Amino acid sequence: MEHAGLEADLLRRLRDALPDPAARGFADDAAVLSWPLGLDLVATHDMLAEDVHFTPACPAADIGWKLVAVNLSDLAAMGAKPVALLLGAGIGAGRDPGWAGALLAGIRQAIERFGGALVGGDTIRSGPASVLALTAIGSVPPGRALGRAGARPGEDLWVSGTIGDAGLGLEVALGRRAANPRLLKRYRRPTPRLALGLALRGLASACLDVSDGLLLDAARLAEASGVALEILSARIPLSEDARSSDVPVTDLAAMGDDYELLFAAPASARPRIEAAARAAATPVARIGRVEAGSGVKVDGARPERLGHMHR
Amino acid sequence: MEHAGLEADLLRRLRDALPDPAARGFADDAAVLSWPLGLDLVATHDMLAEDVHFTPACPAADIGWKLVAVNLSDLAAMGAKPVALLLGAGIGAGRDPGWAGALLAGIRQAIERFGGALVGGDTIRSGPASVLALTAIGSVPPGRALGRAGARPGEDLWVSGTIGDAGLGLEVALGRRAANPRLLKRYRRPTPRLALGLALRGLASACLDVSDGLLLDAARLAEASGVALEILSARIPLSEDARSSDVPVTDLAAMGDDYELLFAAPASARPRIEAAARAAATPVARIGRVEAGSGVKVDGARPERLGHMHR
Repeated sequence: MEHAGLEADLLRRLRDALPDPAARGFADDAAVLSWPLGLDLVATHDMLAEDVHFTPACPAADIGWKLVAVNLSDLAAMGAKPVALLLGAGIGAGRDPGWAGALLAGIRQAIERFGGALVGGDTIRSGPASVLALTAIGSVPPGRALGRAGARPGEDLWVSGTIGDAGLGLEVALGRRAANPRLLKRYRRPTPRLALGLALRGLASACLDVSDGLLLDAARLAEASGVALEILSARIPLSEDARSSDVPVTDLAAMGDDYELLFAAPASARPRIEAAARAAATPVARIGRVEAGSGVKVDGARPERLGHMHR
Repeated sequence: MEHAGLEADLLRRLRDALPDPAARGFADDAAVLSWPLGLDLVATHDMLAEDVHFTPACPAADIGWKLVAVNLSDLAAMGAKPVALLLGAGIGAGRDPGWAGALLAGIRQAIERFGGALVGGDTIRSGPASVLALTAIGSVPPGRALGRAGARPGEDLWVSGTIGDAGLGLEVALGRRAANPRLLKRYRRPTPRLALGLALRGLASACLDVSDGLLLDAARLAEASGVALEILSARIPLSEDARSSDVPVTDLAAMGDDYELLFAAPASARPRIEAAARAAATPVARIGRVEAGSGVKVDGARPERLGHMHR
């Protein structure tokens, strides 16, 4: 049969590397899944492109991991549990089956860590640059999905983890900052906050994941909810690496790729949120308040620069 | 906010052009859908890349239509009904919002014609060439999905529509054949055989869609089912345009992009298949038989060339 070598090899690797009962998709035209009775379906689709989201030198396994993680982060922000993933692998000219195999290894590592199953996909030649697409399908009890639009004046504003590490890691990857494996890992191997997202159902009034910088994503939450957000810079959680960098906190809060959850909740929910964060083994910090109005203020002033828009 | 112009404009067009109750996906991180109670989920993901699946000169609306059609064709082959679509639009350098708008118009036309709803997606810059990805999610009653693996010796082999028109249309598009709007349309605006796929549930023992040429896809069905397929060339359905071309039928059967359904069924099902085809307003032709063994024969001989593999 006239299979082009690279595609046939990648497809074989997909089949061998990720066996799953639902993965009829690799033999049939599509995958078939029993859907959990009565649950709503949550679906998201994010792409990563060479020279835009990753450099040609980025290890393929890290690209695969990140492709899964950024999509699962969207599910986390909705309070959804991963069920199935579909991969679109547009392999650029000059990439060999070894590169594709490492990409798949990274995808598999992320799926083993975070859940879900790779059930189907497509692999094509995509011209000079690689373009990778992933669809993540998750489940949530009816009417319980989190969204961006529910924040109300008087509520607290929270964020998980630490902010700015991934942005500093990008500078490490680009050779603009001294080598630091912790920061580089935060950039290349983000952790979707799935357990926290599940735990926030019924607690958070609004939630999104911080992908393009804390301030820019805060502005999105503010706009969707029709409120203003007041952030105190001293409350923004920073790692030791970020603290010891020479970067002002408002710049760290304008860097991308954190994949932390930013959410609002009434003050009455504080003890339950802290318990949920402990149960999810994910630190959270109360960084500000929801107010009437619009836009984002940091320490009472409009920030000069909101964020990093790489899409 | 620092939205890059093209992406922001395309996202706005997505939001404006395709309003749908489920399309929280364009405001939230992901789309939320009530899943039809008790139905299985069928999911597929196909990509189209510039210079591989379409030329830079191809009208953007036709690309959008075909992106939807090729994915829905996979659902048709499984006997599934379209529910939701997620779009990954990797827009190449040099494409303006007008191009993206035409792409979306073609996507909308296909969705209006064939069903489903665009509920989410992503849009990115993708380097020099455009790379488009679509995920189609469909529904099917539990255990009723069609697959490739069920053909048994003694059964009939059927195909819908006519074969080779799209391949001739590609030659028209490339300027290698005299202008012919009918053939060009078969190539650029394929029709997924959704009604026929639904009607074949419980009748066909195996089914797939013909995307890379009748003979190559027949070989895939034979391999998945562990059988041989015997095709009679005189039975392969041809349009008047194909008949009057100078192309031998075995070459037409090795051309791609037909998006017809190839399926096997016991002889006892003939009257019901003919009734199903009439009800679906889709012609079908009995082109051969399933035999013990492996591979594909045409008029008793192994074809020199099976098909056209563009993926």
